[in-house]
Amino acid sequence: MIVVMKQEASEGDVEHMVQRIESLGLKAHVIVGTERTVIAAVGDDRKTHKESLESGPGVASVMPILAPYKVASLELKREPTMIRAGSLSLGNGAVGVIAGPCSVETEEQLIKTAEAVKKAGATALRGGAFKPRTSPYSFQGLKEEGLRLLAAARDATGLAIVTEVVATEDVDLVARYADVLQVGARNMQNYRLLEAVGKTDRPVLLKRGPSATIDELLLAAEYILDAGNPNVMLCERGIRTFETHTRFTLPLATVVYLHSKTHLPVVVDPSHGTGHTYLVPKMAAASVAAGADGLIMEVHPDPENALSDGYQSMTFEQFDDTMRECRKVAEALGRKM
Amino acid sequence: MIVVMKQEASEGDVEHMVQRIESLGLKAHVIVGTERTVIAAVGDDRKTHKESLESGPGVASVMPILAPYKVASLELKREPTMIRAGSLSLGNGAVGVIAGPCSVETEEQLIKTAEAVKKAGATALRGGAFKPRTSPYSFQGLKEEGLRLLAAARDATGLAIVTEVVATEDVDLVARYADVLQVGARNMQNYRLLEAVGKTDRPVLLKRGPSATIDELLLAAEYILDAGNPNVMLCERGIRTFETHTRFTLPLATVVYLHSKTHLPVVVDPSHGTGHTYLVPKMAAASVAAGADGLIMEVHPDPENALSDGYQSMTFEQFDDTMRECRKVAEALGRKM
Amino acid sequence: MIVVMKQEASEGDVEHMVQRIESLGLKAHVIVGTERTVIAAVGDDRKTHKESLESGPGVASVMPILAPYKVASLELKREPTMIRAGSLSLGNGAVGVIAGPCSVETEEQLIKTAEAVKKAGATALRGGAFKPRTSPYSFQGLKEEGLRLLAAARDATGLAIVTEVVATEDVDLVARYADVLQVGARNMQNYRLLEAVGKTDRPVLLKRGPSATIDELLLAAEYILDAGNPNVMLCERGIRTFETHTRFTLPLATVVYLHSKTHLPVVVDPSHGTGHTYLVPKMAAASVAAGADGLIMEVHPDPENALSDGYQSMTFEQFDDTMRECRKVAEALGRKM
Amino acid sequence: MIVVMKQEASEGDVEHMVQRIESLGLKAHVIVGTERTVIAAVGDDRKTHKESLESGPGVASVMPILAPYKVASLELKREPTMIRAGSLSLGNGAVGVIAGPCSVETEEQLIKTAEAVKKAGATALRGGAFKPRTSPYSFQGLKEEGLRLLAAARDATGLAIVTEVVATEDVDLVARYADVLQVGARNMQNYRLLEAVGKTDRPVLLKRGPSATIDELLLAAEYILDAGNPNVMLCERGIRTFETHTRFTLPLATVVYLHSKTHLPVVVDPSHGTGHTYLVPKMAAASVAAGADGLIMEVHPDPENALSDGYQSMTFEQFDDTMRECRKVAEALGRKM
Repeated sequence: MIVVMKQEASEGDVEHMVQRIESLGLKAHVIVGTERTVIAAVGDDRKTHKESLESGPGVASVMPILAPYKVASLELKREPTMIRAGSLSLGNGAVGVIAGPCSVETEEQLIKTAEAVKKAGATALRGGAFKPRTSPYSFQGLKEEGLRLLAAARDATGLAIVTEVVATEDVDLVARYADVLQVGARNMQNYRLLEAVGKTDRPVLLKRGPSATIDELLLAAEYILDAGNPNVMLCERGIRTFETHTRFTLPLATVVYLHSKTHLPVVVDPSHGTGHTYLVPKMAAASVAAGADGLIMEVHPDPENALSDGYQSMTFEQFDDTMRECRKVAEALGRKM
Repeated sequence: MIVVMKQEASEGDVEHMVQRIESLGLKAHVIVGTERTVIAAVGDDRKTHKESLESGPGVASVMPILAPYKVASLELKREPTMIRAGSLSLGNGAVGVIAGPCSVETEEQLIKTAEAVKKAGATALRGGAFKPRTSPYSFQGLKEEGLRLLAAARDATGLAIVTEVVATEDVDLVARYADVLQVGARNMQNYRLLEAVGKTDRPVLLKRGPSATIDELLLAAEYILDAGNPNVMLCERGIRTFETHTRFTLPLATVVYLHSKTHLPVVVDPSHGTGHTYLVPKMAAASVAAGADGLIMEVHPDPENALSDGYQSMTFEQFDDTMRECRKVAEALGRKM
Repeated sequence: MIVVMKQEASEGDVEHMVQRIESLGLKAHVIVGTERTVIAAVGDDRKTHKESLESGPGVASVMPILAPYKVASLELKREPTMIRAGSLSLGNGAVGVIAGPCSVETEEQLIKTAEAVKKAGATALRGGAFKPRTSPYSFQGLKEEGLRLLAAARDATGLAIVTEVVATEDVDLVARYADVLQVGARNMQNYRLLEAVGKTDRPVLLKRGPSATIDELLLAAEYILDAGNPNVMLCERGIRTFETHTRFTLPLATVVYLHSKTHLPVVVDPSHGTGHTYLVPKMAAASVAAGADGLIMEVHPDPENALSDGYQSMTFEQFDDTMRECRKVAEALGRKM
Repeated sequence: MIVVMKQEASEGDVEHMVQRIESLGLKAHVIVGTERTVIAAVGDDRKTHKESLESGPGVASVMPILAPYKVASLELKREPTMIRAGSLSLGNGAVGVIAGPCSVETEEQLIKTAEAVKKAGATALRGGAFKPRTSPYSFQGLKEEGLRLLAAARDATGLAIVTEVVATEDVDLVARYADVLQVGARNMQNYRLLEAVGKTDRPVLLKRGPSATIDELLLAAEYILDAGNPNVMLCERGIRTFETHTRFTLPLATVVYLHSKTHLPVVVDPSHGTGHTYLVPKMAAASVAAGADGLIMEVHPDPENALSDGYQSMTFEQFDDTMRECRKVAEALGRKM
């Protein structure tokens, strides 16, 4: 931690801050510059109240040196974390593909979709039973009935099930049916929920909130890891920016950056990340080229009549084409898909 | 709803969309332009799956006409909603002021702060007992013990208590102690929590998420209203932008815009909205000038030793000065404070 | 400057960086932490190629300590800079008000507006003769004829003239007619233009670009100051964010922040900063409460028929009301307007 | 254009707006909805003062239907525009690669780099002679001497020269030496400069400003096209968002979106788009997968000692590896590189 003093800070202010730093169990090094004094605080500062140092007399700013997360960090564990959940395998050089409808609607819709995406090469089935919806007037999901249909689709196809859990009180129920628990973007900082999924033995797909920094995403993962669950997949699904021609802005550099900071695998969601079906295929291929460990995509037998997210769902044929292109890229780069 | 067709859309596409629109119970008007055809869909489209229309053949885009919220809307109820909760009164021309520490730490800290903010003119006491923290390694709050201290502070000063609830399972407990339930920015789209606070008889202070649009904020309010609780205060606490000299960007035009769309009162949080104590006083005064119905601010007897948010907390003296300036502005503009 | 080494950096890397830092004329202090080594580089680093240090072997990141601007800095000059240009006086406790149409259209339009804004209390007249327009198909301004009309309006009312200059080759021409040269948001980083206005003896109103950081704004001012012109007014006119209910997001904390960093006066433009007439009055009052040294606002005799920016222009009556409210706030806070 | 009336708009307001619309040469269709009235205005509205309609009595908002650009539009010209400038060929299925140093520094630096990038497969050489720099204290480029060195590098290697022009008065000079004129991100809305390069016979590489919308980018291109120059390449180089782990956020969906709207070729700049060398290779490959017609990348013989942008420049070896990976992706997808 570097404490930068104001130009007008007095010697007493510097002395005061040195004592504060040492009272936190850190060692202080004072460096007198030509225009300002800075104090380097040496030691593990993750658990100290570093932000409160900014309130100190004469302090201009405080700059952390250590990343705030620990267990997720590549510095702690250098080998990539591999996730295995039934048919889904991620983070081992192979690109896992999770595909399916936004919402579970009917048995026929789900089974048909599961069969189609499996045939095209998907390794897991997604489908929402509990749906967090922006408007209280939108379809809210089939709930437990949806979970049952998902399990039936797994029985029919062998595909692992990835489905969202939106509340602590549903975690046990959802974990009974699902192979992977998804924590959605809106719940990325719902810490109780993170703790609850951290106590299950199910791998977790953690989606980045649309305005979450990468440090915040990794700290959210840290809640799950810290609760005892080592199997976390991070998912980039687009951030909120001034752009309006896409629903969100999908920043693929996240994949490369995360691979330089964490051992956790990184999944990209080009459906939510763009919000328009016609943008998905090329952004899926670009995700693979950027090194994504997995993809999650929305596929529906009849997007025009989908109960949610039709505008970003692919038909079976579009998905098949997309898989074909993605596979070409993966193979060219020496990866399996 | 306006469905804009692509230039290359066929007559069959237009005909298809007309039927789709009518099958949703809306009336379709086709307007053939010089370069494109648009179809106006007339009727209440809030509950229909309007997004799925974007998947229709030949559709370029779909533009909603009606706001997606209804009960929160000024079109439904023209008189401003007034909130009364013990000593706190908001939305009636008077500016309510909620002040106190970020976290409840000790009885002495809390009672001293409550007395100081009351003397300076605050009309309610804030203080966190359940703290949602970005890092699992940060102080997480005193929980029920914190609630007890808050109730003691109310007994001592008569100030109404505003405190955050972070999980559905805590709602009853928190509602037993608090006068106002705060839903934090991170939980703005935690719909179960919104429904749960919507079933209590406590007024709710709903904070805007840092990347939430105003429509999303009003739809979150709509979840609470729809669950039966009419007493919602909306709180602007800053949005995430590219700016780094402030922790968040505080867009005060939100106040004026919301007053043109909703009858719900609007509170501004200049502490989180700027993230630096020295910016708070003038931004508080500016909030009053912009027409805010209330302010919520962090005050601590010793910010440098606060267990959270010291960098944005005011001392008693700073708060007293801030109140003095805000009152001058309020009075000049014919409002009480 | 603080050079943060990667955890895996070798001793040789550290030694290499120490030599690099010293070859730049700075003094290096090595601080060995529990997890990483950092090197503090002491000295004036503004002119050195500090960014290239990031390419050094084993370097994780480089954090500057000194602000990159110098002449604009409060550390160099503590007294606020006052601007005087004919009837306009800014930065001396009084709030200067620049008002007028977006574009100069006709003599009648301009003279009528000048008289109306003067009567309402404006101290300078704005009006565009050279218009930078997003689309080549929009009205591009009356050019020199517009400048002549502005001069005529000054003759008629005594109001100082503020008008935009968009190209280096026009600087002399515009400076012949105008009292204050405006550099628009799109040209904030047109360095040739900044140098050119820096060589005139006219005060400059420098608008912040919609995605410019404050450091970038101050460095743009530094180009003008460095060219010999000390009379620069900084203008906050809104930044680009994800918000769409306003055309730009107007972050008033900029005013307070700038006052803590620079001696240059700060003007706010609530017309461009919101993009909707109905939002302007309260945001103007809020700007005064935030401590703005000046306001610049669009006023038109008939906004509906304006050739540009009608959607954010006030009528004479609206402007008169706005001035009245702003004056109340200014007086309450002990300022003149 | 759709004019949405407020709920409280009177019949007189509607009638007034109908007359306004017809006075602009458009045809008005009134559609009375269940809650609001909307008026569809039919005709080419690009040249009309559509924004001023928002000031009309009772108007809630105005939504354009037609894109504001015309010549750049795919609706006007369906075949992709191909650019040929010496060795550079773009937009014909082949991926053009422009590589070289940020700034031209010395003859040796430039010739060595030109030879290295050519050998690795680049088809054009970039290098800045006129440098727009955020700080007046940074290296500003060798100016005409830099142009001479670029021409010498072309003589030595046969590579076409791409270099930036920052001011109208330099256009002739730069056009004498360069094969392609680059308009930088800071000058994307410097309309005089756009008109000036539009009058030359050199192809133009137009970089997107970091907060420019795609419509604004296409309108900037429209200035060049409208001035008579049909050879414009659009360049995505990253946008400004809240993210700080990259210097800018590189939104590759831009490539796919632009291909759906315009016939102009799209180049991606992963060097500026990420701001860190280690992120460039994978983002270059991802750009190819997203369908980019070209890449522009920074390469320097000794990034650590570069006079500018060392932190995002690749060494010769890194560039060679990057090209190899990109070529694999291109070939897998049936494109040449």
